[in-house]
Amino acid sequence: MGRSYQIIMLENKVFSCFVFYSVLLVIKMYIIAIITGQVRLRKKAFANPEDAQRHGGLQHFREDPDVERCQRAHRNDMENIVPFLFLGAVYSLIGPSLSVARAHFLVFFLFRMLHTLAYLCVLRAPTRSLAYVIAQVPCISMAFQILAALSSYACSGSIGDRVNL
Amino acid sequence: MGRSYQIIMLENKVFSCFVFYSVLLVIKMYIIAIITGQVRLRKKAFANPEDAQRHGGLQHFREDPDVERCQRAHRNDMENIVPFLFLGAVYSLIGPSLSVARAHFLVFFLFRMLHTLAYLCVLRAPTRSLAYVIAQVPCISMAFQILAALSSYACSGSIGDRVNL
Amino acid sequence: MGRSYQIIMLENKVFSCFVFYSVLLVIKMYIIAIITGQVRLRKKAFANPEDAQRHGGLQHFREDPDVERCQRAHRNDMENIVPFLFLGAVYSLIGPSLSVARAHFLVFFLFRMLHTLAYLCVLRAPTRSLAYVIAQVPCISMAFQILAALSSYACSGSIGDRVNL
Repeated sequence: MGRSYQIIMLENKVFSCFVFYSVLLVIKMYIIAIITGQVRLRKKAFANPEDAQRHGGLQHFREDPDVERCQRAHRNDMENIVPFLFLGAVYSLIGPSLSVARAHFLVFFLFRMLHTLAYLCVLRAPTRSLAYVIAQVPCISMAFQILAALSSYACSGSIGDRVNL
Repeated sequence: MGRSYQIIMLENKVFSCFVFYSVLLVIKMYIIAIITGQVRLRKKAFANPEDAQRHGGLQHFREDPDVERCQRAHRNDMENIVPFLFLGAVYSLIGPSLSVARAHFLVFFLFRMLHTLAYLCVLRAPTRSLAYVIAQVPCISMAFQILAALSSYACSGSIGDRVNL
Repeated sequence: MGRSYQIIMLENKVFSCFVFYSVLLVIKMYIIAIITGQVRLRKKAFANPEDAQRHGGLQHFREDPDVERCQRAHRNDMENIVPFLFLGAVYSLIGPSLSVARAHFLVFFLFRMLHTLAYLCVLRAPTRSLAYVIAQVPCISMAFQILAALSSYACSGSIGDRVNL
């Protein structure tokens, strides 16, 4: 049975393409978490007193601007990459052309990578904001294409079905 | 191939219904992010020194209660809408009746909209908390229905299968 | 139609196993949210002035270390359990053996439970950090197995297909 699932997944190239970039972005988020931990150790700035105790004393239970920068980058990823994981998966199901879909995924991927780079390396404003805005474009596009696909399906049904939404 | 997927999705009305409300809620989260950015610009309160520099100077690298309110609304959405995206998708797979499923999705959708409204417009307590609690009801319901569906399937298998969970 | 979906899901034991642990982890996250609310009420520390007003006055609009501890536990869950929901679902589609897959899910589940326990009960460092690291191992493993499955599929296709990724 796992097999038939596998076939469905692997044969849907749009879905495979979506999964490829999504997994890379999830790994990127894990790397931000690792960097945050390294910055905490290097700057000796811990979020919990028990961690500070273990690393030299309660005076290291404190905030640090570099740690907070990592956390903001991670938070922004959560707010944007997680909805992409949902929208991209559903979008793969509505049968877009592979080239158009890949363009959506690739733009999102590249500009989220740039966003993280701009955040962690403190690139000059508005690099980070621009990367954020451009990466949102394919997401908005997918959201509206999904709604359009649903409504075109609803309209091809009876009125009774349509009001079911 | 995209086609067969499309058929599966479009013909599962519960799933289509789930996707419809989910995409609207994702768009709502994007709108909170846009509002947060607008409030930052209006109040001149930026989370990063490089942004503050660009908008008049480092004195604008500061916190602001209105920005923090938007962030709390967004954070609460992440904590509640994201698990809904998972539970709702799985729930669509266990074959609930369309009317019951739609009631679950609609209650969640309406009360999460009210939650955001109550947060951003500072409606009198406990409007926001009530909206949060009521929106959790369909989520808890779906979670337990999913567990029940899994266990009923496990029990219909052999004991060997059952302990596999 | 719901039926055929149901069959696919229920017959894929890896997916059922994944859903089982995932739903428990989502419920665990909901419980952290409930605990956070209880701590707010007990310590009289509210994030919003309108909540503080309702519970005795604006002096209760304040931060509290116990509330912040709950929030850090919840935030860490969001950063780790949410990517697991994605990776685990995709991993279920690439046809892993049930016993290997169950080991991945079980390790993640047990060590995320320990992570929450270590956070909320302030267990001695580095219990919490170790639980975090061990729970990441199956996630990293799944991420790379997914990428390997995608590339092995890409390589079995024509070169033209391969560069499509």
